[in-house]
Amino acid sequence: MENTINIGIIGVGTVGSGVVSMLTEHKELLKAKVGLPLRVTKMVSRSFKLESPVEGISVGKDPREIIEDPEIDIVVELIGGLEPAKSYILDAITRGKAVVTANKLLISQHGFEILKIASERGVPVGFEGSVAGGIPIIRVIRDALIGNEISMVRGIVNGTCNYILTKMFNEKKEFETVLKEAQRLGYAEKDASLDVDGIDSAHKIAILSFLSFGTDTKFKDVYYEGITALTYGDLQYAFDMGHKIKLLGIAEKVGDKLSLRVHPVMLPKDSILAKIDGVYNAVEVIGDYTGPTIYIGKGAGSKPTASAVVSDIVDTARSIYQKKKTKKGFVFLPKVTEPNLMDISELRSKYYIRLEVVDKPGVLAAISGIFGNHDISLKYVLQIERHEGQTVPIVIMTHISKEKNIKQSLKLIEGLEVVTKKPVMIRAMDDETPTG
Amino acid sequence: MENTINIGIIGVGTVGSGVVSMLTEHKELLKAKVGLPLRVTKMVSRSFKLESPVEGISVGKDPREIIEDPEIDIVVELIGGLEPAKSYILDAITRGKAVVTANKLLISQHGFEILKIASERGVPVGFEGSVAGGIPIIRVIRDALIGNEISMVRGIVNGTCNYILTKMFNEKKEFETVLKEAQRLGYAEKDASLDVDGIDSAHKIAILSFLSFGTDTKFKDVYYEGITALTYGDLQYAFDMGHKIKLLGIAEKVGDKLSLRVHPVMLPKDSILAKIDGVYNAVEVIGDYTGPTIYIGKGAGSKPTASAVVSDIVDTARSIYQKKKTKKGFVFLPKVTEPNLMDISELRSKYYIRLEVVDKPGVLAAISGIFGNHDISLKYVLQIERHEGQTVPIVIMTHISKEKNIKQSLKLIEGLEVVTKKPVMIRAMDDETPTG
Repeated sequence: MENTINIGIIGVGTVGSGVVSMLTEHKELLKAKVGLPLRVTKMVSRSFKLESPVEGISVGKDPREIIEDPEIDIVVELIGGLEPAKSYILDAITRGKAVVTANKLLISQHGFEILKIASERGVPVGFEGSVAGGIPIIRVIRDALIGNEISMVRGIVNGTCNYILTKMFNEKKEFETVLKEAQRLGYAEKDASLDVDGIDSAHKIAILSFLSFGTDTKFKDVYYEGITALTYGDLQYAFDMGHKIKLLGIAEKVGDKLSLRVHPVMLPKDSILAKIDGVYNAVEVIGDYTGPTIYIGKGAGSKPTASAVVSDIVDTARSIYQKKKTKKGFVFLPKVTEPNLMDISELRSKYYIRLEVVDKPGVLAAISGIFGNHDISLKYVLQIERHEGQTVPIVIMTHISKEKNIKQSLKLIEGLEVVTKKPVMIRAMDDETPTG
Repeated sequence: MENTINIGIIGVGTVGSGVVSMLTEHKELLKAKVGLPLRVTKMVSRSFKLESPVEGISVGKDPREIIEDPEIDIVVELIGGLEPAKSYILDAITRGKAVVTANKLLISQHGFEILKIASERGVPVGFEGSVAGGIPIIRVIRDALIGNEISMVRGIVNGTCNYILTKMFNEKKEFETVLKEAQRLGYAEKDASLDVDGIDSAHKIAILSFLSFGTDTKFKDVYYEGITALTYGDLQYAFDMGHKIKLLGIAEKVGDKLSLRVHPVMLPKDSILAKIDGVYNAVEVIGDYTGPTIYIGKGAGSKPTASAVVSDIVDTARSIYQKKKTKKGFVFLPKVTEPNLMDISELRSKYYIRLEVVDKPGVLAAISGIFGNHDISLKYVLQIERHEGQTVPIVIMTHISKEKNIKQSLKLIEGLEVVTKKPVMIRAMDDETPTG
């Protein structure tokens, strides 16, 4: 057991229960990918939101059971708020324990102070879960873009506001109406001011700014406006002028100054950020070497945030493991298995097909017959031009069909005397995009 | 100098020169962010593409000068191709040197083999530059989404094809014409088959699949089709049916099988992937906890790929540093400076303004006068309804103006007797989106 990484979780609410479920549900997967046994040994919470107790994990009420346990390597703080979260974290760091937190309020106000103390003790602190849930934006800025001079970070970082704006526009409703609906459905808090006044976005911008520009920026440095003054009319007027309105958090270098702000922004309606609807978040980072890059995903919720917290746990565990073993560096090598490959002939898809055919009676019947015999039903058949006796294109869209049947049909169709060229076939993907 | 990380670069062409320029140009920034002195000590290349020699870096022709140099910690391989790149890399690993490469061909065919040998020796190998240049997709899949069971990775991973398809559609041109233009402009190789036949995308899908599913998938396992059969007509018919055509690489779990394929796909024209134009790449990853996430950025080119290579160098350097120092873990703590904050009043933007005013003669003149006196010029003024004597909305869009002037104007306007409500003001961002 000496190389097991032991984890204690303080706060088992929405996010905490997601973390426990990810770590237990994907135990084997994580072992294969990480190569380290991660074990949650203790959880404490005032109100456990777990569906059932998990075998092998002791539960309690007192966070000190975790902080003071010499067997625990990583303390995961998920209670939120400034205190007692800050004291718990500093206490854990002082005892040499690694810390993982999703506490945006705390990090946006005391992030640098906490990291400084942790750095002096050589203790890793992860906070990926504090901004934009399922989007690994902390890791991207901190590690992936590290060689870049960043000029701007901006994005939709509050799902509640984005949900409200999307609903207002799509359903032609006013702010108050949609807010009440959102509150009833649990998408907005009863006291929604943290979200709709732009405060939550300002917390996140303070954190992103700190990471991007290396400045000790805090929540108090961010100018913010919310969305409460917007009417359906504003969204419609904006749209008529070619724009959509989104609440953006922005951290931008302007000359030698840094502009930190949160406010509604009119974006060209065809831009990527304008298309991010509902509970999705999106963050754009402009680096001098990468140019603009955009990261899109679900911004909150139990599972996406759990994914962020677990990625921090794994990162931290690797670093602890390295300290324990020390002989050689820990090198990523996943367990590799033989792939069970699917042949392209087994694919099921909708298909666009373009044929070049001689325009004469009976051609369409012959083609449709071949498709019908191969269990392929057609959604559209378009013959765009008519030139009796000459070659014209026919464009076909099928319903979901088997690739094998499509290819057999096309072979037969290609053999028809009236077909003058090899058919062109393109697979269609109509599945839901993540912007709904 | 004991803690300096010494770097040798083999191959100083397009990407290599970008790496050298990033490491020298951003030397101070990297020192502040990483806390480690990174030093390129040697470069070898058959054809240096550097604009000028860089002080303190010795240059040569023989890669063994780097591989056999006991002072060098990290070997950066940027010559591409299978051999001699593979031998150089394995030789470096055997000598205990860390390796960073952007070689997609090599990794797509021998990635697992190389990582296995490196893992046995405890030597880190980075290959972020091998897929989608400026998008940190390797790091995202390997680290950020590590707790997720991934069901699909798909994306636009070849900028040349995307450039050609974008041009064909926008300029109503045929494939051959656009390809020739692209070749003349240097956006496509003289022998473009690696790109336009889908082979390059297939290399990248093999790598992404290996990372996402932990299967030893290689290039040979990927079914591929290119874009050479597509006509302008196909793009237009697709668009008329609500779709855009993109060349996608796809790695997807279908039941208990894995489908690896590259082919043109019709996507709903309002989807995010359909909006990725020109030389931009985009990769969508669906994890069971995160749900769908999308990553967008420039896919190739000297600077974006250099950014990826440098992020690997930094990552590797941290791990080497940790091995050298060993006492305590290396903990991220950037150098932090006092921010020079810009006040919101200094912002320059276009502004959308909605006023509720009593509809009577002279109102517009009064309002325009106030804006004029504050150096604000108006792009649109729309009075949508007319109801003499009643309250009606007026919508205004300004040209770029100073926030201070806008706020002063609005204060005066709010004080006008005919203005019945607090004005609503929204900042507009019309800057180029990264999809051009």
